[in-house]
Amino acid sequence: MQDNTLQLTAYLLASGLDPARTVLFAQSAVPRHAELCWVLTCLATQARLAHLPQYRERTAGGGDLGAGLLLYPVLQAADVLLYRATHVPVGADQLQHLQLAALLARTFRHRYGPAFPTPRALLPADGSDRVRSLRDPAKKMSKSDPDPKSRIVLADSDDAVRAKIRKAVTDFTPQVTFDPATRPGVSNLVLLQCLAEDKTPEEVTDEAGGLTTAQYKRVVAEALVSVLGPMRARAEELQSRPRLLRDVLRHGAARARRRADAVYADVAALTGLAPVELMEADKKLKVA
Amino acid sequence: MQDNTLQLTAYLLASGLDPARTVLFAQSAVPRHAELCWVLTCLATQARLAHLPQYRERTAGGGDLGAGLLLYPVLQAADVLLYRATHVPVGADQLQHLQLAALLARTFRHRYGPAFPTPRALLPADGSDRVRSLRDPAKKMSKSDPDPKSRIVLADSDDAVRAKIRKAVTDFTPQVTFDPATRPGVSNLVLLQCLAEDKTPEEVTDEAGGLTTAQYKRVVAEALVSVLGPMRARAEELQSRPRLLRDVLRHGAARARRRADAVYADVAALTGLAPVELMEADKKLKVA
Repeated sequence: MQDNTLQLTAYLLASGLDPARTVLFAQSAVPRHAELCWVLTCLATQARLAHLPQYRERTAGGGDLGAGLLLYPVLQAADVLLYRATHVPVGADQLQHLQLAALLARTFRHRYGPAFPTPRALLPADGSDRVRSLRDPAKKMSKSDPDPKSRIVLADSDDAVRAKIRKAVTDFTPQVTFDPATRPGVSNLVLLQCLAEDKTPEEVTDEAGGLTTAQYKRVVAEALVSVLGPMRARAEELQSRPRLLRDVLRHGAARARRRADAVYADVAALTGLAPVELMEADKKLKVA
Repeated sequence: MQDNTLQLTAYLLASGLDPARTVLFAQSAVPRHAELCWVLTCLATQARLAHLPQYRERTAGGGDLGAGLLLYPVLQAADVLLYRATHVPVGADQLQHLQLAALLARTFRHRYGPAFPTPRALLPADGSDRVRSLRDPAKKMSKSDPDPKSRIVLADSDDAVRAKIRKAVTDFTPQVTFDPATRPGVSNLVLLQCLAEDKTPEEVTDEAGGLTTAQYKRVVAEALVSVLGPMRARAEELQSRPRLLRDVLRHGAARARRRADAVYADVAALTGLAPVELMEADKKLKVA
């Protein structure tokens, strides 16, 4: 396993996921994801996949396109349906991928019978799926942006967070207001403070009354640092215990596998694939 | 499992596959096929897949094309590479699919390291991959042809075999000669007799000297019946023992799974996916 899997696990635990209540595992440790992905691939049409907005964005440059790029939303659909998910927390940019999962669930039902409920999106109400790039507020904050200054990552030191917020692109109006349409840069900083301190934009802008944007950036940076700093310390502590992290993933994978096996057994029975039972026993036999 | 899986298993055993020497199993009983298929999907380009001749033939009519049709040769490549196959018996129509498997093996090697030898085709020298339709010798004999009279299937009764050969399309020359280019219908019957009796076209046409095509059809029919009849009887006997057939498949799946797990463990290590070991243990642990 790559170290970045353990690092990610450490940050997920540090951010509050409780392995006693959450089934936390590496997708690749549960083969049923790939198996259900193949079944769903046979139900998906190429036209439907090629029209998904993320695919169109990424392929706008043309070139020799990988098949994985086209099929990735089908694997995501398998990730959702394999656990009979009814509600899936997603950002607005993933809504169409979840609609594909819902379509594949219905197509499966029509062709083979009921195996999956239709999953519904849980969109966050706090704006956390609308955080913008710190360098270009017209774009989403994204881990794939080539400029690392455009985003805050959980492993950033306190000083790195302060520096990135200090250099965040805003505008030439010094007052702190919340108006994402006309002042996306400053409004993005307000949103970050809201998320860090669980406040409304009104509370935040009231408190910032009289501050210039430059002064306000210090307030935002300290709000972020006071949330992210302790989380990072906890994550670093967890990263020094790789065996514990592996055990969490191993235990999660075993739980996920039991659930996935039960659902996939139904899929196999409905579609006529070899049943799970065929994989379990191991008797030595010869044809008489 | 569908009855046709057991029927196919019975015919494979009846035709001479020895489960003591052959690992015989249902593909869907070994999850690593689907998992390796996903890894290879990420190495394949859409353009390469869309240019495979079988894909182009089947999509010539246009319409809403399934993604499974595009990806099927990648699953076939996984079937081959998962067992580190070095030589694969294929018909001429599958040669390009095997070349795709060889390309994906090389691409994997360049990107991640050596995991798979380059598989080579074993084309049959006896012409068994060139059997033509009995109704239209311009086409291959195929199980997907809409006309069941175009093909002989292993479950055909002796009389059904005789009737199909009697009605086989030939030409208006009564002599029996072997010239696939100018006399494809009669030459196809000669080929069938060669395969049934392990003879050369020269031997067969010498023996048929003086026979009209109509008379010769009876010779071909009896040659086929004497091979297929006993095979069918043996298959029917095996089909009356479904538990035996299931045990053969179960034992084969367990053997295949052990080999596939070993190869996939290397794939996981080279690509950085979660290792197989993560899936095995199941300790109850909590984060301290």
